[in-house]
Amino acid sequence: MSEEYEVSKQNKVRQLRENAVYDKETVHGILDSALLASVGFVQGGQPVVVPMLFGRDGETIYLHGARKARVIRLLEETGTASMSVTHVDALVYARSAFNSSMNYRSVTVFGNVRLVDDWDEKLHALRVISESTMPGRWDELRAPLDNEIKMTGVIALEIESASAKISSGMPSDEEEDYSTPIWAGVLPLKSTFTKLESDDRLIDGVEPSDAVKAMQGKTL
Amino acid sequence: MSEEYEVSKQNKVRQLRENAVYDKETVHGILDSALLASVGFVQGGQPVVVPMLFGRDGETIYLHGARKARVIRLLEETGTASMSVTHVDALVYARSAFNSSMNYRSVTVFGNVRLVDDWDEKLHALRVISESTMPGRWDELRAPLDNEIKMTGVIALEIESASAKISSGMPSDEEEDYSTPIWAGVLPLKSTFTKLESDDRLIDGVEPSDAVKAMQGKTL
Repeated sequence: MSEEYEVSKQNKVRQLRENAVYDKETVHGILDSALLASVGFVQGGQPVVVPMLFGRDGETIYLHGARKARVIRLLEETGTASMSVTHVDALVYARSAFNSSMNYRSVTVFGNVRLVDDWDEKLHALRVISESTMPGRWDELRAPLDNEIKMTGVIALEIESASAKISSGMPSDEEEDYSTPIWAGVLPLKSTFTKLESDDRLIDGVEPSDAVKAMQGKTL
Repeated sequence: MSEEYEVSKQNKVRQLRENAVYDKETVHGILDSALLASVGFVQGGQPVVVPMLFGRDGETIYLHGARKARVIRLLEETGTASMSVTHVDALVYARSAFNSSMNYRSVTVFGNVRLVDDWDEKLHALRVISESTMPGRWDELRAPLDNEIKMTGVIALEIESASAKISSGMPSDEEEDYSTPIWAGVLPLKSTFTKLESDDRLIDGVEPSDAVKAMQGKTL
C-alpha cells in the first residue's frame, strides 16, 4: 500500500475535490514524467514564477540554474517555495461552455528550500537532474569540471506537502443538455519525442548510444 | 515594425541574455499557443503556483476559475501576479552535462490583477478564454446561464511588463569537447492533437463541426 501526503491547510484541494489525489506514488509519477517545473517565489512581496529543470530523489527535488541567477539567489534567501507541474492530456468538448474543460494531471508541491553547498551532494543532484531528463546520458559524458560545478547553483526542495489533481474521461454535462444535438467528446493531446537530429560538427561515424536512441518515440 | 515591452528591473532577463526577446508580437505568439499558464501569487507571505486556463485580448489576460476558488479570492486581494508559460521544443544533447539543455519558448508576464465584476466584460472574457482554447466553439454552444456566470470567477491581468526567452538550435559545446567521439544533437518534442473521441451519450448521427474537426492534427 502506498503512503499518502498528509492533508493540511496548505495542500488541501478545495475545488473539484473528487479529482484530488494525495497518494505519494501518483504524485511522484506525475513529477517524474514532467520535463519542467514552474517554481514560484516571492521577491519584494511580489510573486515570481519561472520554469526550471528539475529531478526528484525520494522526497527531495533538485532544481538548478546558473549560480548567479536571480532565481537561485532568491530561492536561497526565501526558505520556502511552491512548485507546479501540469500535463494537459485532452481538450474536453462539453455541450456547454461552462462544462468544457481539459483533462490533465497536475501536482503542486510546497517545501523548504536550501542551497546545496556540499560538493558531493551537488554532484549527486546534477546527476539526478540529468538522469531524469536524459536517462543514461550522465555516464556517457566526461565528468563535470570543477569550474562548471562552481558556476551551477543547485537548490534542494524538501517536499513538505503535495497534492495531485487528475481529470480524465468524457465531459460531465448538465442533464438537460444531453438532448442537445451537438457533438461532445474529447480531443487527446500527445507529447512525443520524434527523431534524433545530429549536430553538424559531429565526428564522422559517431552514433547515438542505445540509451539516447531509446528516447525516440517516447510519449510524456 | 512591432512594438516592444519596456525593459525594467522586473522583466529584464539576466541569464542567457542572448535568448531574451521583448518584442510584443513574439510574446503574444508564445502566449497564444499555450493551453495553460502557471500563475503565481502570495498567500500569507508564501508563494503559491497554480495552473490556470487563460485567454488574451490585446494586453489583457483573462484567467478563470470557480468563483469561490482560493486562487480567485487571492488574486482578487493581491493586486499583482506573475504568470509563466513554457513550451519545450527539444532536448539538447551536448558533449558535456554542463552544456546539455532544452530548446524552449517561454514567457513571463507581470501585471496588475482585478476581479472582473462587470457582466458584459465577464461574458466577453469567457468567450476570449473559450476561443483561445477551442476556436469556433463558443457560437456552437447555448448561451451561458446566469447562474453559470455567477459561479465563475474571472480575473483580468493587465500586462505591465513581459519578456520571452527562446532557445533553439544545436548544442553549444566547449571548443575542446568537439573532438570527443560522442554523439550530440537534438531530440524534438512535438505536442499534437490526435483524433476526436465521441462521448458515449452523443445523439445518433451528430457530427463535430468543421471548427472542431480542424483541431485534429494541430501542433502546439
